[in-house]
Amino acid sequence: LLGRKVLIVYAHQEPKSLNGSLKNVAVEELSKQGCSVTVSDLYAMQFEPRATRNDIVGCLHNPEKFNYGVEVREAYKRGGLSSDVIEEQKKVQEADLLIFQFPLYWLSMPAIMKGWMDRVLVEGFAHQFPDCYSSGYLKNKLALFSFTTGGSQEMYTKGGISGDIRYALWPMQHGIMHYCGVKVLAPHICFGPESVSEEERKEMLLAWAQRLKTLWKEKPIDCSPEWYFK
Amino acid sequence: LLGRKVLIVYAHQEPKSLNGSLKNVAVEELSKQGCSVTVSDLYAMQFEPRATRNDIVGCLHNPEKFNYGVEVREAYKRGGLSSDVIEEQKKVQEADLLIFQFPLYWLSMPAIMKGWMDRVLVEGFAHQFPDCYSSGYLKNKLALFSFTTGGSQEMYTKGGISGDIRYALWPMQHGIMHYCGVKVLAPHICFGPESVSEEERKEMLLAWAQRLKTLWKEKPIDCSPEWYFK
Repeated sequence: LLGRKVLIVYAHQEPKSLNGSLKNVAVEELSKQGCSVTVSDLYAMQFEPRATRNDIVGCLHNPEKFNYGVEVREAYKRGGLSSDVIEEQKKVQEADLLIFQFPLYWLSMPAIMKGWMDRVLVEGFAHQFPDCYSSGYLKNKLALFSFTTGGSQEMYTKGGISGDIRYALWPMQHGIMHYCGVKVLAPHICFGPESVSEEERKEMLLAWAQRLKTLWKEKPIDCSPEWYFK
Repeated sequence: LLGRKVLIVYAHQEPKSLNGSLKNVAVEELSKQGCSVTVSDLYAMQFEPRATRNDIVGCLHNPEKFNYGVEVREAYKRGGLSSDVIEEQKKVQEADLLIFQFPLYWLSMPAIMKGWMDRVLVEGFAHQFPDCYSSGYLKNKLALFSFTTGGSQEMYTKGGISGDIRYALWPMQHGIMHYCGVKVLAPHICFGPESVSEEERKEMLLAWAQRLKTLWKEKPIDCSPEWYFK
């Protein structure tokens, strides 16, 4: 495991939150294993979530009619993306494993993390149709979505009011990571940490540390519709 | 229809884009019907997508450990949310119909629109568990997701590489709008406008104008898991 590289993309405003602790646990455990760990602390970085003209340095490919997808694809080719995006792409490029740590907002990522996906995973860098899924440019990497929920576990079941949590994972795991060729490990979910005791929250941290000890032996999930909707 | 109020939440950087034209078509057609139409042009407003301490004016409920959900709930109660959020909440409160107009980014909304959801639909304003779904605070309102895709229609079918487009609609329609009590009209989807002829793009605009003529007679979809995953 020595020399394996991990990028943790972390989105929580409060270092003392459970998300903050889960991030710290991952940094400690993976470092102890000899991995080299990098954290993108999105709120601390005041990461820009908006996809705008500012992401392109210099002249536009077509200034008459701004098309974000076309412009960032062309800018990527000539090394003309904004420095914050290039910085994140370097981290992704070097990583063997991407961990996304966040609180679930509206059955999805917080906007600041969605912005990371929108701006960093540029065409030409992460994919280029038909080079997607098994031939996506980020193949040979792993991703893991680690998040907390507001509701209890039973709310996120097939019969629960929020539906099976796997439904919510489809756009994130399949639509983004799998599309770029990344293999997806089973998600790590802490259900309703705000409604449980301090003791139970500690157990959540221990369970995460425990899982990380054997993480590199895990097989990716079969990221097909059956996994999500069967 | 005279006096009905419509809020269009619009997320595209380029006024000359198809999304821009779809927004204009909606403004024109609904105004012609006698509706009063308001547009939140998120990129033009430089709308802030990040959920931070800046959303709370004055002192925090618990400055020792920042919990965004708790802080904005408490700030809402005392009228202490930031002015840009209050402004959007007023528009939502007055609207009979919310139209979300955007290009699909990664099987979801662009981050700037996700940020609108994250920051505007505050607990106490839009919902307060167990007041959700049929008893959500935004009941008696309608919502419609109108968006463009990069891929063709066949890519977004059950057997297609991106899966049934309805899978992607679950977090947005059910997870957000339905949760707040809003009734959801069928989505309006323009598939792959960048891969079709100028003539076909014009037809897309005409089809949208045509649909809007009888929009108020439409029945909401049955926003249950069956609609999405059957």
